[in-house]
Amino acid sequence: LPQRDVTLRTGFVPSVAVLALAFIGLFFGVTQYCELGGNAMEQVGLYYKYLVDVNVMVWIGFGFLMTFMRRYGYGAVALNYFASTLMFLAAIPMLGATQQVFWNERHSKIQIDMALLIDCAFCAASGMIAFGAIIGKATPTQLTWLLFFQVPLYALNQHLVIHTFKALDMGGTIVIHLFGAYYGLAASLMISRNQPLHGLDNPKNTGAYLNDLFSMIGTIFLFIYWPSFNGALAAVSAGDLADASDAAKAAQFLCIVNTLLSLLGAGLAVFATSAAVGGRFNMVHIQNSTLAGGVAMGAACTLSLTPGGALVVGCAAGVISTLGYQYITPLLDRTIRLGDTCGVHNLHGIPAVVGTLVAGLAALGQEPDFLNYSTGRQQLGYQVLAGVVTMGIAIAGGLLAGAFVAWFNPRGDDPMSAVELFDD
Amino acid sequence: LPQRDVTLRTGFVPSVAVLALAFIGLFFGVTQYCELGGNAMEQVGLYYKYLVDVNVMVWIGFGFLMTFMRRYGYGAVALNYFASTLMFLAAIPMLGATQQVFWNERHSKIQIDMALLIDCAFCAASGMIAFGAIIGKATPTQLTWLLFFQVPLYALNQHLVIHTFKALDMGGTIVIHLFGAYYGLAASLMISRNQPLHGLDNPKNTGAYLNDLFSMIGTIFLFIYWPSFNGALAAVSAGDLADASDAAKAAQFLCIVNTLLSLLGAGLAVFATSAAVGGRFNMVHIQNSTLAGGVAMGAACTLSLTPGGALVVGCAAGVISTLGYQYITPLLDRTIRLGDTCGVHNLHGIPAVVGTLVAGLAALGQEPDFLNYSTGRQQLGYQVLAGVVTMGIAIAGGLLAGAFVAWFNPRGDDPMSAVELFDD
Amino acid sequence: LPQRDVTLRTGFVPSVAVLALAFIGLFFGVTQYCELGGNAMEQVGLYYKYLVDVNVMVWIGFGFLMTFMRRYGYGAVALNYFASTLMFLAAIPMLGATQQVFWNERHSKIQIDMALLIDCAFCAASGMIAFGAIIGKATPTQLTWLLFFQVPLYALNQHLVIHTFKALDMGGTIVIHLFGAYYGLAASLMISRNQPLHGLDNPKNTGAYLNDLFSMIGTIFLFIYWPSFNGALAAVSAGDLADASDAAKAAQFLCIVNTLLSLLGAGLAVFATSAAVGGRFNMVHIQNSTLAGGVAMGAACTLSLTPGGALVVGCAAGVISTLGYQYITPLLDRTIRLGDTCGVHNLHGIPAVVGTLVAGLAALGQEPDFLNYSTGRQQLGYQVLAGVVTMGIAIAGGLLAGAFVAWFNPRGDDPMSAVELFDD
Repeated sequence: LPQRDVTLRTGFVPSVAVLALAFIGLFFGVTQYCELGGNAMEQVGLYYKYLVDVNVMVWIGFGFLMTFMRRYGYGAVALNYFASTLMFLAAIPMLGATQQVFWNERHSKIQIDMALLIDCAFCAASGMIAFGAIIGKATPTQLTWLLFFQVPLYALNQHLVIHTFKALDMGGTIVIHLFGAYYGLAASLMISRNQPLHGLDNPKNTGAYLNDLFSMIGTIFLFIYWPSFNGALAAVSAGDLADASDAAKAAQFLCIVNTLLSLLGAGLAVFATSAAVGGRFNMVHIQNSTLAGGVAMGAACTLSLTPGGALVVGCAAGVISTLGYQYITPLLDRTIRLGDTCGVHNLHGIPAVVGTLVAGLAALGQEPDFLNYSTGRQQLGYQVLAGVVTMGIAIAGGLLAGAFVAWFNPRGDDPMSAVELFDD
Repeated sequence: LPQRDVTLRTGFVPSVAVLALAFIGLFFGVTQYCELGGNAMEQVGLYYKYLVDVNVMVWIGFGFLMTFMRRYGYGAVALNYFASTLMFLAAIPMLGATQQVFWNERHSKIQIDMALLIDCAFCAASGMIAFGAIIGKATPTQLTWLLFFQVPLYALNQHLVIHTFKALDMGGTIVIHLFGAYYGLAASLMISRNQPLHGLDNPKNTGAYLNDLFSMIGTIFLFIYWPSFNGALAAVSAGDLADASDAAKAAQFLCIVNTLLSLLGAGLAVFATSAAVGGRFNMVHIQNSTLAGGVAMGAACTLSLTPGGALVVGCAAGVISTLGYQYITPLLDRTIRLGDTCGVHNLHGIPAVVGTLVAGLAALGQEPDFLNYSTGRQQLGYQVLAGVVTMGIAIAGGLLAGAFVAWFNPRGDDPMSAVELFDD
Repeated sequence: LPQRDVTLRTGFVPSVAVLALAFIGLFFGVTQYCELGGNAMEQVGLYYKYLVDVNVMVWIGFGFLMTFMRRYGYGAVALNYFASTLMFLAAIPMLGATQQVFWNERHSKIQIDMALLIDCAFCAASGMIAFGAIIGKATPTQLTWLLFFQVPLYALNQHLVIHTFKALDMGGTIVIHLFGAYYGLAASLMISRNQPLHGLDNPKNTGAYLNDLFSMIGTIFLFIYWPSFNGALAAVSAGDLADASDAAKAAQFLCIVNTLLSLLGAGLAVFATSAAVGGRFNMVHIQNSTLAGGVAMGAACTLSLTPGGALVVGCAAGVISTLGYQYITPLLDRTIRLGDTCGVHNLHGIPAVVGTLVAGLAALGQEPDFLNYSTGRQQLGYQVLAGVVTMGIAIAGGLLAGAFVAWFNPRGDDPMSAVELFDD
């Protein structure tokens, strides 16, 4: 892995040591287990399978998806491992405090339960999306701080979207994908400003045969477990069952079926679109755009969209994402020199915009039980508001955090030079 | 991926576009969710884990199992991805109509529930078995239509085997493996007739070191999740629980334990047999024949075979499958020029014949609760009948569909030339 | 795979044939299914997910973790497959008899149920840990007998630790990791005594770029499923629920949360430690030491450690394990010529010693419901006793079994020569 002996020792090691000590202090000071006993047992049954599935997506899915680069396989899978671990740990006190202590003063200490752990895995997923935009261009020290700063912004934005605006977002189209993608892209702009060869013109920023096979491991595990991702938090506990509406009882079923159909539609559409625009199948499209169906369904998945509706959303997301890789990424690379190593703009950014609108528009035809507002129009309005606010926080936060890590230079942790880019 | 720019654009793209539009129309026209509410919630608990496990087998298992070829890794995993997606989608209306509308007029519209989705994944598995016989030799366009035609035949044959003949086949030995293998082999005969170098004489039709490691990913995931495959549909819902016999209540347990023991037996037997016949371990045997224990147990797995019985079935299947790879495949390649790229005849064909007979013979000693007929003799007779009919439909269908796609040549989608075989 | 045509045929094949026939005889003679009916159904719900997760760890996790060697990828994944299968099968009658017949005469025949199968997977895991110390240096015949002999010792030791000493060990820190590591290391000493170039001085005993990526597949699946491993047997059945204490009801929840936090802590600590001691990230540390958090938590995971406590244990285990790889392995290699191909001493041995003490020390502050004795001091004493006895049995057994397979030479199955080491 990176040959930056001096800078790892002076920048990375102290950074991680400080964070680790801070986590230990926070964990002892402000966290505790949720109530043990029957409640803990029920949680394992309701949530544990989904927590594991989401973890497979974060560590195997994103980790291997990014191994496509010919010289950056170690960097992809190892730094993904590190960064996911860091964000998961950071999210426990930060998300926990936001959800349980600051606004909703349910507890004086943060209670660690399965649902909170799933939320922390979601936060790590959001971080790995951002990581996709800057992979190969940031030092481990820069990565550490950039992703660490993402956590409080994620917690704040989640609070606004879910609790303040009451947007539909069970699968995190807005909170995870939209936020992560634009945070990462904004940070990438700041980090890469002064890096020559940081974009598509770098010959190392491309795949290789066996690397692309490793990448497909990530793709397919993401594909398979995505219904679990979107439905992870939709379970109904025994205590709530008596009062639950049919819409609430069916929510997890709908998340799973809608997401699966959307992914299948995207898969079909991507192969056709890729062949149509390129004359052959492009592994980049197959590795990435086939998953756009999952992203686009994250906000709407609890709605009764009809099976046909879910299929159409997936097909559209697959086509749009493929066209994005084919036309938009090279355009942004040429014009604003936007580095986007993994094309997160096409896999997460644009499909998340689509998905935000899909949920809002679909809300117009839903029965009230499926919505958080009494009318679909209100719901649509708040979906749009949630999307706009999320993009604002993500872009502003990404620019600031990116500028900070590009400037902050603890004891000689220089930004990566051209020869180091995409090379571990 | 394939360098066939023109033919992909003129053959593949319109084919997939037509199918996608047809699916969208059918989904809007004839499908709906199953009843939402408590029923949907129960289904998630009973079936979702198994659906995911089967999907891992179809997409990761078959997808990576086939990456062993030195020049066809992309083709294996990408076309498997595409083809599984296509078949899963095609199966929803076709299997749904067969099961719910045509013969058994329970509903006027097809209700999409978890059990139907598992059946669709099974249909895709059957298609991937057939794909194993023709991989590397058919164009994407040919593959699309060949596998699309498999779906209605699969639906018809499933109806005959399960509902008309009431054969034992919880794990799909007959419906999935026997059918898929002979459909693919028959199609392969027709597609490869005019292809020189389509068989073992092609130097590209062989493994390479790292490719064989990728292939082992597929093997081991198939091995691990096979008990879920055989037991996926054996759950008993809360509504049926009061009336269920002990045999019905124990069915999923028996599927899991019998399949696991059979797989372990096959694993042990294959290593010994491979070393005995070849003097060393042959990765082809390890990758494939170790799984014959799962195939051979698919029909009998709900029976009370005793643990020893399950172990013997697995050992026998492992030995037979290994001998098939060592002796029968080269023989069929030389004599009738049967192309069988992945050796599906040895992994799925012969073990499925064994498994059909195992279920029938084991039925002779079972208590009636475990059977669909009042005597074991009747059950044995219908097992044999189901096997024969399945082979007939599979071979006739495969020959016809193979001949069709070898002849059908939309705007210059030529069959693959010798230099293109096994090369992506 | 290994080129030892003659010796495989004369040594390995008869060995496996004899064992397979013995298993078949034993299975028919002394095993039966557990009671079918509702009980079998409940077991599937309580345990099956965990059985599958543990199997993923044994076959994918350990199998791929060991593929890091540049010339031994086949050997790693294929022999792991074989050896796990062998040990799983051998464990069914041996563990079954120990648990159900010999001491605790509950049954006259061994009842195969889900909990027993999980225990057999644990035994196979223990074998794969031992395998990690001798991989690349033992012939398949030697491996077969070495691991076969491990099973009865494992069964005996498990009985002593769990039933006689009543030690805390839900996740198998003592029974699985401590036992497996020292059994393998002791056997390695005996096998490698006369092998030149069996250690770190062999240029083949090192990683390669893509092999290290394969190895990360193993690492990450081990990481993700480790909470399932530690909590697999902690479920409470419906029958026991009325009498269960809150500690018993929360046991599985605590196993999962404590293990996850410990793993996350180890992950963070390993990256920092690896960079601190080496100036760069060392893939060996990342592949292995990040998992030390799971090993160290196996004995204490059912205790109410507080989230902060779990995090500290993981951080400490990660640091210690990394330092072990960096300093202790080369030292033992130079001084006593201890061959430890995968560094199991650092991943399983030392962290298991730590974990044994952690459970004992943590017991001092626990409420009695969490313990098997009325005071924490007693529990601490028995933890230490269990650890010492386990190390004694493991080392004595490993030395004896290692000496046996190094001496036993059925018809010319010579030990591996220098050129054959770490080369398949």
